[in-house]
Amino acid sequence: MKLKMMYSFLNSDLTIIEESLEETVQAESPLLNQASLHLLKAGGKRIRPVFVLLAGKFGDYDIDRIKNVAVSLELIHMASLVHDDVVDDAELRRGKRTIKAKWDNRIAMYTGDYIFARALELMTKVEKPFAHQILANTLVELCIGEIEQIKDKYNYEQNIRTYLRRIKRKTAILIAVSCQLGAIAADVEEEIHKKLYRFGYYVGMSYQIIDDVLDFTSTEKQLGKPAGDDLHQGNITLPVLLAMKDNKIREKITQVQETTNREEIEKIIVLIKQSGAIEQSLRISDQYLHKALKILNELPQNRAKKTLSDIAKIIGKRKF
Amino acid sequence: MKLKMMYSFLNSDLTIIEESLEETVQAESPLLNQASLHLLKAGGKRIRPVFVLLAGKFGDYDIDRIKNVAVSLELIHMASLVHDDVVDDAELRRGKRTIKAKWDNRIAMYTGDYIFARALELMTKVEKPFAHQILANTLVELCIGEIEQIKDKYNYEQNIRTYLRRIKRKTAILIAVSCQLGAIAADVEEEIHKKLYRFGYYVGMSYQIIDDVLDFTSTEKQLGKPAGDDLHQGNITLPVLLAMKDNKIREKITQVQETTNREEIEKIIVLIKQSGAIEQSLRISDQYLHKALKILNELPQNRAKKTLSDIAKIIGKRKF
Repeated sequence: MKLKMMYSFLNSDLTIIEESLEETVQAESPLLNQASLHLLKAGGKRIRPVFVLLAGKFGDYDIDRIKNVAVSLELIHMASLVHDDVVDDAELRRGKRTIKAKWDNRIAMYTGDYIFARALELMTKVEKPFAHQILANTLVELCIGEIEQIKDKYNYEQNIRTYLRRIKRKTAILIAVSCQLGAIAADVEEEIHKKLYRFGYYVGMSYQIIDDVLDFTSTEKQLGKPAGDDLHQGNITLPVLLAMKDNKIREKITQVQETTNREEIEKIIVLIKQSGAIEQSLRISDQYLHKALKILNELPQNRAKKTLSDIAKIIGKRKF
Repeated sequence: MKLKMMYSFLNSDLTIIEESLEETVQAESPLLNQASLHLLKAGGKRIRPVFVLLAGKFGDYDIDRIKNVAVSLELIHMASLVHDDVVDDAELRRGKRTIKAKWDNRIAMYTGDYIFARALELMTKVEKPFAHQILANTLVELCIGEIEQIKDKYNYEQNIRTYLRRIKRKTAILIAVSCQLGAIAADVEEEIHKKLYRFGYYVGMSYQIIDDVLDFTSTEKQLGKPAGDDLHQGNITLPVLLAMKDNKIREKITQVQETTNREEIEKIIVLIKQSGAIEQSLRISDQYLHKALKILNELPQNRAKKTLSDIAKIIGKRKF
């Protein structure tokens, strides 16, 4: 079953989210408008809004209230992508030209800032100081994650703990908080929204590990960029760290630089695949997934819970 | 009298602010720590915290509560400077190397994001949804101002209205909101904090116009960069717009590009000075100042009010 079919009962609300996304980034500045809409139109899985809405189903679900959280978190995610593209000097994202490629780095930086500010503006409609504290703290962690990622580029001395901490900050926390804030906006009690946070965290960890595996196992067509691009860019992920336990592979990997040619990267991809690191990574992702599903068991029975479980499982099995 | 002597009665509170600034940007990431502290140590007038504290004196002044607003607004200002330096490709600020120069653009972008996130985190201690709405809206306007400034670079078709709207967004609103949020954090009634907002807005407009005048009338030593640098960078300010009313000067100015040599810029500076545009600009700044002082008259009598008036006057007369 495809991801989107699982939450088809949310379709009308997701349409509202989509409209609100567009409405929220509207600016009287034509340049900002164009850049923001360009980004929105590039699409995306909208997985964070889906988690927000599903978590809201555990409480007093009111789309007019909860949509502010869903849109805000998706915009924060998008703003962080825009800044990532500046740092990674990326020309394409999801097969479309990035803002930094279509305009320039300066426009991309301020468009990111702008989308981010709009997200905050929308979030202030949720008049719960606690929710804002959670969000602000998440933003701090996100930024630390981004800086750590730069610092750790081509750093082959890092270990699996470094990696896990980084993907927690970069990916898992925002998904965790999507679940938690969706619940908080629906007045869900503390015990439940904390569990939803943990569910989101485990799913996020699993999700990012799979993402990092797919960078090696997918085709260029599926990825929209060459396989092994993370490694080439110096982003040391779980399969790489596991493969490096073999000293011969380690020696080859630690020589990778920006200037390394494509042929060499292809050779290393083969070595990593042969090393068993892919399977090991998938097992670790599975462990996170298992933890996520276990927490779900402790939550009240409802349709959203079944959907969260289905989504978690499909995320753990996705091929691209 | 020097600016700092005017508010010497705030000294012990400003020390608390300074300590809180350092404490707030602390990160377990050494790179972020270094970059943030480098920025803080470069100093600055801390004019926004001063306005926050003074505005707070109109109400129930509690330094432990109000410092969060003061520190948060100063950090937002600093974060925006870090991003500005990326866009302007600036090597120096206040005579010290910028973060983008000392590290690189990527670190500067994320350090800006990080400082900004820390500012928001601190601000969430102020549990007043209204305050957050004001702040978020300010951030949106700031970003629009930044993008408009890029768009309007070397655009000689813009008019004085464009300029005024831009400096409102870029500078005046943040000073206005410093006054307003300082008052709100001290539970000042609406009528008063709205007047303080308007006071700050007028002072901010006057401040930025003077800043733009000084870019032509100060020495390189005073500015820390060559005179006329704004014009050279394509930032069309009030003196330029006023001088362009003379067609001969207009013709010369509209030929300015990034590649224009220093000698030509010097000639244009002389023309602008001879045109009367400097005096006209100062008169417009004075009008804003006059409006600011008029609003102060409507506020209750206290020591802070006298200080705000003194600061406004000195800002209107400052030579660098």
